[in-house]
Amino acid sequence: MATINENFLKLKAGYLFPEITRRIRAHKEKNPAAKIISLGIGDVTQPLPPAVISAMKKAVDDQAKEDTLHGYGPEQGYDFLINAIIENDYKSRGVDIESSEVFISDGSKCDTGNIQEIFGTENIIAITDPSYPVYVDSNVMAGRTGPANDAGQYAKIVYMPCTAENNFVPDLPTRQADIIYLCFPNNPTGAVATKETLSKWVKFARDNRAIILFDAAYESFITDVDIPHSIYEIDGAKDVAIEFRSFSKTAGFTGVRCAFTVVPKQLKAFTKDGRAIEVNPLWHRRHCTKFNGASYISQKGAAAIYTAEGKKQTKKIIDIYLSNARLICDSLTKLGYEVYSRMNAPYIWLKTPDGLSSWDFFDRLLTKANIVSTPGSGFGPSGEGYLRLSAFAKPADVKEALQRFKKV
Amino acid sequence: MATINENFLKLKAGYLFPEITRRIRAHKEKNPAAKIISLGIGDVTQPLPPAVISAMKKAVDDQAKEDTLHGYGPEQGYDFLINAIIENDYKSRGVDIESSEVFISDGSKCDTGNIQEIFGTENIIAITDPSYPVYVDSNVMAGRTGPANDAGQYAKIVYMPCTAENNFVPDLPTRQADIIYLCFPNNPTGAVATKETLSKWVKFARDNRAIILFDAAYESFITDVDIPHSIYEIDGAKDVAIEFRSFSKTAGFTGVRCAFTVVPKQLKAFTKDGRAIEVNPLWHRRHCTKFNGASYISQKGAAAIYTAEGKKQTKKIIDIYLSNARLICDSLTKLGYEVYSRMNAPYIWLKTPDGLSSWDFFDRLLTKANIVSTPGSGFGPSGEGYLRLSAFAKPADVKEALQRFKKV
Repeated sequence: MATINENFLKLKAGYLFPEITRRIRAHKEKNPAAKIISLGIGDVTQPLPPAVISAMKKAVDDQAKEDTLHGYGPEQGYDFLINAIIENDYKSRGVDIESSEVFISDGSKCDTGNIQEIFGTENIIAITDPSYPVYVDSNVMAGRTGPANDAGQYAKIVYMPCTAENNFVPDLPTRQADIIYLCFPNNPTGAVATKETLSKWVKFARDNRAIILFDAAYESFITDVDIPHSIYEIDGAKDVAIEFRSFSKTAGFTGVRCAFTVVPKQLKAFTKDGRAIEVNPLWHRRHCTKFNGASYISQKGAAAIYTAEGKKQTKKIIDIYLSNARLICDSLTKLGYEVYSRMNAPYIWLKTPDGLSSWDFFDRLLTKANIVSTPGSGFGPSGEGYLRLSAFAKPADVKEALQRFKKV
Repeated sequence: MATINENFLKLKAGYLFPEITRRIRAHKEKNPAAKIISLGIGDVTQPLPPAVISAMKKAVDDQAKEDTLHGYGPEQGYDFLINAIIENDYKSRGVDIESSEVFISDGSKCDTGNIQEIFGTENIIAITDPSYPVYVDSNVMAGRTGPANDAGQYAKIVYMPCTAENNFVPDLPTRQADIIYLCFPNNPTGAVATKETLSKWVKFARDNRAIILFDAAYESFITDVDIPHSIYEIDGAKDVAIEFRSFSKTAGFTGVRCAFTVVPKQLKAFTKDGRAIEVNPLWHRRHCTKFNGASYISQKGAAAIYTAEGKKQTKKIIDIYLSNARLICDSLTKLGYEVYSRMNAPYIWLKTPDGLSSWDFFDRLLTKANIVSTPGSGFGPSGEGYLRLSAFAKPADVKEALQRFKKV
C-alpha cells in the first residue's frame, strides 16, 4: 500500500500566493470591468535590460547550430556565470569565494526550499516571524515540525518575532536553534541588517554550531553604504552561513529563472554523534542528483547583467522600483498610515488601519480600490495586522494606486 | 548543533555521470591530442528545430517590452503548453487528461527525483536493476533504504533484475512493493513494454494499492505501432500511475530545460491507517511551494514542438538518432558483440566482451579507442558486465567510432 507523506496534511490552507490569486479571480468574476492594480506578489514589471535580451537571443542562436549547441551543462552552472558572480558580487566587496562554492540554479524559491534536505530532521529550525512562507512550509513537509496551532504556528519551530518594537530585526534565540533562516533586506518587512546585527548572528551560530541560511535575494536594493550585501562580509561567516541570491528582482528574471547559492567549503555540520562533515559536498550531491542545470539561455542572460552595459541598465531598473518605494512610503505616511521602510528594499510594510486583520484590509483594498496587496499574516502570525505593498509595479500604476488609497 | 541528513552518507561513490567526467578529464590530461567521441552521456548533438528557435527568439523579444513581459507564470506551467500537450500527446492516443493534471517543470531529473517527497518514508520502493540512478539515489537521501551492500544494493529496496533472460522486462515483485519505478523505452537497456506487460503492472498496482512512477522520457523514439507511448493507454492506469515526460530528447532541450509530469486526479495513496488521499493536490502543493515555474522562453520553445512545422522538424531529428542506433546495432552485431536493442530507443545495451567488468570495458574503450561509453554497472548491479552506448552522437562520429571499435 502506497502511503503519503503525512507531514503534508499539517500544512495550513493554501500557499499564500495561490490564495491571493483565488481571491482576485473571484473579485474579477463579480466585477469584470474593475481595473485592478497589483502591489501584491513581488513580480517585476520593467522589461529586461537590453544587454540581457541581446545575450539571450545570441544564446538561442547558439542552440540553432551544431557547433554552438549547448546540451547538458555542468549541474552547478557554467564557469562564465560563476566567475562573473565571484568577481562582481564578492571579490568587489572583499570576499573570496571559490568557483566550487557557487551553485547556479533556476530560482531562490527552489534553493531555499530544497536546502533543508541535506540536514537531519532532528534540527530545530528558527525562523523570523513574519517570513517568506517557503522556509516554514518546506520544513513542515520534511517533518521538522509538529502540527500547527490556531495561530498557524507549527510546534518545534522557534519563531523569532519581528515587530515595530525590535525594528523588525529578530532577537537572538534563547532556546536551542540549529538552523536559522535570515533574510535581509527582508521580505516582507523591508528591514535591513547592519554589520553589528549580522556579527551577533554569526557569533551565535559559531557558539552554538548552528547554521545560518541567509537569503540575500534583495541585496541589490540596498542603498545605505554601510549595510552589508553579503553575510560573508562578516568575519567568520563562511564557517556558518549559506547564502542565497537571485536574479529575479535584480534584473527582472522572474520569468527567465536563474539564481545561485553559495556553500563555503569550510562550512561544517555534524553527525548525531558529533562528527564534523563538510556541507558543500552534500549540497553538490543533492544538486547533481536532482537538478540538471539552469537553462543555458538563462545563464547567458544572467552573465550579461555583469557587463558594463548590463550593470548600468540594471541599476536604472532598480532605481525605478526604489523611487516607487519612496513614493509609496511618503504618500501613505502623509495619509496617516504607519509605514516601516528603510529605503533599502522593494517592499513597504505597513500597519493595517482601524485594527483590521491583514486579510480584511486586503479584501477592503481589493473590493473598494481594486488594489492587490499581500496580507502580512500570510507571512506568519506576527505579520497579523500588517500589510505588504510591493514597489515592483509600473510607476504610473503606483501613482494611480496612491490616488485610490485616499478614498479607502 | 546543526546535524546533517545522515542518509547522504549511505550514498555509494559519486553520481555516475560526474565519475565518467572525471575519468575523461584524466584521460585528456594524459592524452591532450586524443580525439574523443562520446557515445556516453545521453546528450543531444542535433541543433534545436527551427520552429523552436524562432519561438524562443520571439519569447526573448517579449521579455524586452513592458506590454509583453512575462514574469512569474503559473507554477504548474502556461496553458498554451499544457493544452498542446493534452491535445497532441494524450487526446491523439485516446487518453483524456485534464489541464490540472499536467505539471510543467524544468526537467524530468527534477521530477523523478522530487516526486518521492510526497510519499511516506515507510514505502517499499521497487526499482528495476539496472535503472536511471536518480530513482535509487533520491530514495536513499530520503531515508527509504538501509545501507548499501558490497554489490551497491541498498537494504529495503526491492530490486527487479532485468537481464537477457527476461528480455530486460522485469517480473512482478513477489514481495511487498508500494512504489514502483518503471521506465519504457528503458534507459539504459532500450527495452520497451507491450500493452500486455503494462496491463500486468497496472493490475499489480491496483491489486496491491501500489503506485507506478512511469518514466516515458524516451517515448518519442518508439517506432513499433503496437507499443504504448503512455501508460494511460492501459485501462485503469490513471488510478495508479504518475507519468513523466521530457522535451530533452524529443527536441534537444537538454540545455533549454523543460519537461512535465502527469498526476491524475483520481490517483490515490493512503495514510498509514488506510485513509485514501488524492495525490494530485499533494504534488500541486509541493510544486507550488518549492518551484517557481519553468522559464517562459523554454515553455514557448516547447509549445512550438507541437506546431505542424515543429512536429516535422522534430521527427527528422529523431530519425537521425534512430538511424545511428540501427547502425551501431548492426555493426557491433557483425563484430560479434551481443547487442540488445528493439529499435524503439536511443540507447544500445550490449554485453562486455571477454568477461570484462563494465568499468574495465569503459576504460578500454576510452584508452584504446577514445570512445566514451556508459558502464552498465553504473545503473545498478545487474548492469555489471553490460555497457550502454548512446545514439545521440553526430552521425559522422558514430561512423568513426564504429571504425575504431574494429580495433578494440
